[in-house]
Amino acid sequence: MDSWRTAIVDAGPDHIRVKGFDVLELMQRSSFTDLIFLLHHSRLPSAGERRLVDAILIGVADHGAGAPSCAAARLAASGNRASLSAAVAAGLLTIGDEHGGAGSGCMELIEAGLERAATGGLTFAAAANALVEEARSSGSKLPGFGHRVHSTIDPRVAVLFGLAEQAGLSKDGVRFARALEDAIRDRIKPIPLNIDGALAAVLVDLGFPPPVGRLLFIIGRVAGLCAEVLEEHTREKPMRIKIPVTYDGATAQPVGADPRVGPNDQE
Amino acid sequence: MDSWRTAIVDAGPDHIRVKGFDVLELMQRSSFTDLIFLLHHSRLPSAGERRLVDAILIGVADHGAGAPSCAAARLAASGNRASLSAAVAAGLLTIGDEHGGAGSGCMELIEAGLERAATGGLTFAAAANALVEEARSSGSKLPGFGHRVHSTIDPRVAVLFGLAEQAGLSKDGVRFARALEDAIRDRIKPIPLNIDGALAAVLVDLGFPPPVGRLLFIIGRVAGLCAEVLEEHTREKPMRIKIPVTYDGATAQPVGADPRVGPNDQE
Amino acid sequence: MDSWRTAIVDAGPDHIRVKGFDVLELMQRSSFTDLIFLLHHSRLPSAGERRLVDAILIGVADHGAGAPSCAAARLAASGNRASLSAAVAAGLLTIGDEHGGAGSGCMELIEAGLERAATGGLTFAAAANALVEEARSSGSKLPGFGHRVHSTIDPRVAVLFGLAEQAGLSKDGVRFARALEDAIRDRIKPIPLNIDGALAAVLVDLGFPPPVGRLLFIIGRVAGLCAEVLEEHTREKPMRIKIPVTYDGATAQPVGADPRVGPNDQE
Amino acid sequence: MDSWRTAIVDAGPDHIRVKGFDVLELMQRSSFTDLIFLLHHSRLPSAGERRLVDAILIGVADHGAGAPSCAAARLAASGNRASLSAAVAAGLLTIGDEHGGAGSGCMELIEAGLERAATGGLTFAAAANALVEEARSSGSKLPGFGHRVHSTIDPRVAVLFGLAEQAGLSKDGVRFARALEDAIRDRIKPIPLNIDGALAAVLVDLGFPPPVGRLLFIIGRVAGLCAEVLEEHTREKPMRIKIPVTYDGATAQPVGADPRVGPNDQE
Repeated sequence: MDSWRTAIVDAGPDHIRVKGFDVLELMQRSSFTDLIFLLHHSRLPSAGERRLVDAILIGVADHGAGAPSCAAARLAASGNRASLSAAVAAGLLTIGDEHGGAGSGCMELIEAGLERAATGGLTFAAAANALVEEARSSGSKLPGFGHRVHSTIDPRVAVLFGLAEQAGLSKDGVRFARALEDAIRDRIKPIPLNIDGALAAVLVDLGFPPPVGRLLFIIGRVAGLCAEVLEEHTREKPMRIKIPVTYDGATAQPVGADPRVGPNDQE
Repeated sequence: MDSWRTAIVDAGPDHIRVKGFDVLELMQRSSFTDLIFLLHHSRLPSAGERRLVDAILIGVADHGAGAPSCAAARLAASGNRASLSAAVAAGLLTIGDEHGGAGSGCMELIEAGLERAATGGLTFAAAANALVEEARSSGSKLPGFGHRVHSTIDPRVAVLFGLAEQAGLSKDGVRFARALEDAIRDRIKPIPLNIDGALAAVLVDLGFPPPVGRLLFIIGRVAGLCAEVLEEHTREKPMRIKIPVTYDGATAQPVGADPRVGPNDQE
Repeated sequence: MDSWRTAIVDAGPDHIRVKGFDVLELMQRSSFTDLIFLLHHSRLPSAGERRLVDAILIGVADHGAGAPSCAAARLAASGNRASLSAAVAAGLLTIGDEHGGAGSGCMELIEAGLERAATGGLTFAAAANALVEEARSSGSKLPGFGHRVHSTIDPRVAVLFGLAEQAGLSKDGVRFARALEDAIRDRIKPIPLNIDGALAAVLVDLGFPPPVGRLLFIIGRVAGLCAEVLEEHTREKPMRIKIPVTYDGATAQPVGADPRVGPNDQE
Repeated sequence: MDSWRTAIVDAGPDHIRVKGFDVLELMQRSSFTDLIFLLHHSRLPSAGERRLVDAILIGVADHGAGAPSCAAARLAASGNRASLSAAVAAGLLTIGDEHGGAGSGCMELIEAGLERAATGGLTFAAAANALVEEARSSGSKLPGFGHRVHSTIDPRVAVLFGLAEQAGLSKDGVRFARALEDAIRDRIKPIPLNIDGALAAVLVDLGFPPPVGRLLFIIGRVAGLCAEVLEEHTREKPMRIKIPVTYDGATAQPVGADPRVGPNDQE
């Protein structure tokens, strides 16, 4: 079997290096968030960059036991007590385009808009209007806007953008996200940026590729899921979750009467 | 890298054989249930053996959208539309000792009881009484008895045992399961065998090892989960599931005031 | 919390019905494959329909320990012995467009082609040529053709189509799949139908919706994964799998020297 | 449906609080590691406590593409490109007692030893000797000692204990872990503490409950898995992983000849 190749970790009998940095040094001098940044770059972050990644991870870590990821993790924990990783994984598996995944989609949207502006010599407003118009007529969604719980302005957005501003890291990504928000308000209706859209804008300015919009949601949310699973184990009995269900399908059928039944084999 | 070894499937450029049987032949002459049996034996089943495995798989395939596995699968499907396997896997991950896993534990219990009777020259009643007494005093659970929904006698039990009887495959495993049921009734209270206990008894008599008690629940339940996930995609909007949650933890705290807060790095 | 709704299973304290059919009756009269068909229809299958679903499930159940799904399941089983469902789930999670998922994509392709022919009054050959040409010029993939191991004609295809023929269930779906194969051979190069393409064609003719192309792969493969996981537990020590890896990233870096490192908080 | 209860997160339309702390404040003043600590305590950590949790998370985040969790994540990513969370989850599912799970088991061992010493008025050495002797005679494993790759002393151990020492947080947990190491060396053979044992000792002294030994491994490792999955997507083609397999099972069997085959239903 051919050797697999990787440029991330060099692990041997007496060393582990991440992107060339010795883990022993990182353990003594850096934070976990530094490492998370390093895993997607070739260097460690500045203090301002780290502050933004910290804020993003904190912002998405846990949105309550009723969030789909937390609920799924608790359901798994209620039936499968032997494996903490199984329960956390179940919660993780609810993360997709509709739950925690909008960050990646929004990063792609922002990057597309910035490219549109650059190559077409357009203002951000014009490029944003074009993208919103295209989405509107094709019925596509615009990831990064609106939220299930925060029906109005998500307060995490202003905090994140404020931190980016303070650190001098608020650049074209953030500007274009605001342009999109304006364009949506003008062409559709006011639908404010949500935390996924805000982190997307900041991550573009931090130079991360779009998938990291989802990967950071995953890393942050796993911290919350771990606590949710532990609480489910500690406070609740197994199999305590009862979901009310109403059946609205076919009425009772006799099996024997169905002429299309092929009887099972006789001995 | 050393080659991995396996005695299950021999797959090459122009053939696939399962336990030596050509898949092309199996596709033409056998049923999926035949293959499931074969995967854990060195031969295909008799018609009676197949009938029992079919009955078990049907008996566990789906217990409604509110069962923990089905609920978790639907939660994942509501947030993660891009991956059907992710949603089905989330449902699968709720399966453990408390949900669908009792079959394996009950098989081990029955096998332990049969061994106790054989080596100690005891009747099944005596061996069963001994096991129940030990569980009672140590506070251990007896897997295979009782059920969340069927508070009385689970009708699937009688059907399964009836089929085993008809096929001449009702042997010591089934007899000992009934002995356990009697011993529990006498020493604790009436707690009838449930479907996990019944399939455990039948699987012991079919010569399967204990883990298969759980593996057959997994195989059967995955069929149900696939339908549940598809219905969630087809009938419901994404992120439609709302779980009511009541918070009962610490009251609101000011962060700045906490003397044990180490402020985040300044630029 | 609003009740969830479902038309699949009606489960109460003393009954379970699938699409209106009593599970107790199904356990006595039907096979697991009958139930799998019923879960996606409103009736049980004819003997011929069941034979085809059996053949499909058998055809995809296990392709050897080295298949990505089986390998991932074994890796999980080697590290996580406490949860059989976790290991099986890990294998299941490798199933996507590239592994086992082509069935759904090919069903969509066939349905698109049949619609193109119907609405445009085209022959199947013309419609197939149009689809292949569009895929070729846009660089899209055509799911259902070619295979990693079977570089030539996959023998499972002829067997499956033969069974469909025998049962009188070989209709437009199969015909169009063959038309696509011809069009690919003429316009690109000979790339034969593989098992995913063949099951797609048959499932279209059996009236299943496209996602079932993937769901049946999941159901069939889980049977194989269960056996693979059990063999890993039974024959191998934990953590026995060693993957050779070659590092080709950045050379060793001193952390202290990096001017962009923000030192971790001092006490 | 009864409301679920939780003491972790209070999430409403206009606020999110974790253990009573406003997420907006945490985003501005704290690090992700602060939040991870808070999720398992009622307060934020001191700088020294945070340094230790950072060191643990960094120490376990990624041990190379060949580690079982990383390998499983890559296999899933190679077949299932549509879902990043599915691939990361597959890697997570390999985490169990044998991979990343020893931290919890070692915490339980240390806590048992400390209790043994306290209630029996024994020295740590005596209590440690007793535990090691019991494990030896019963054939139980002692989690936290030895390692697949680091055959000698794991250098991460000394670094972690050094940090604990510096922070004045090296207490009975660490002392007892060292006592266990001595007892193992004396009674069995020299098997040094590994990273799981070291983090277990430190986490006991930080007042975490045993499951957190595994949960922190999960949180840390997910960061590494995210990078591994992204690299697999970026550098490698789908389905590129080939595992060499040798079949050592039954030889080819003719299906038709087997008298125990029940032929599939005829039309």
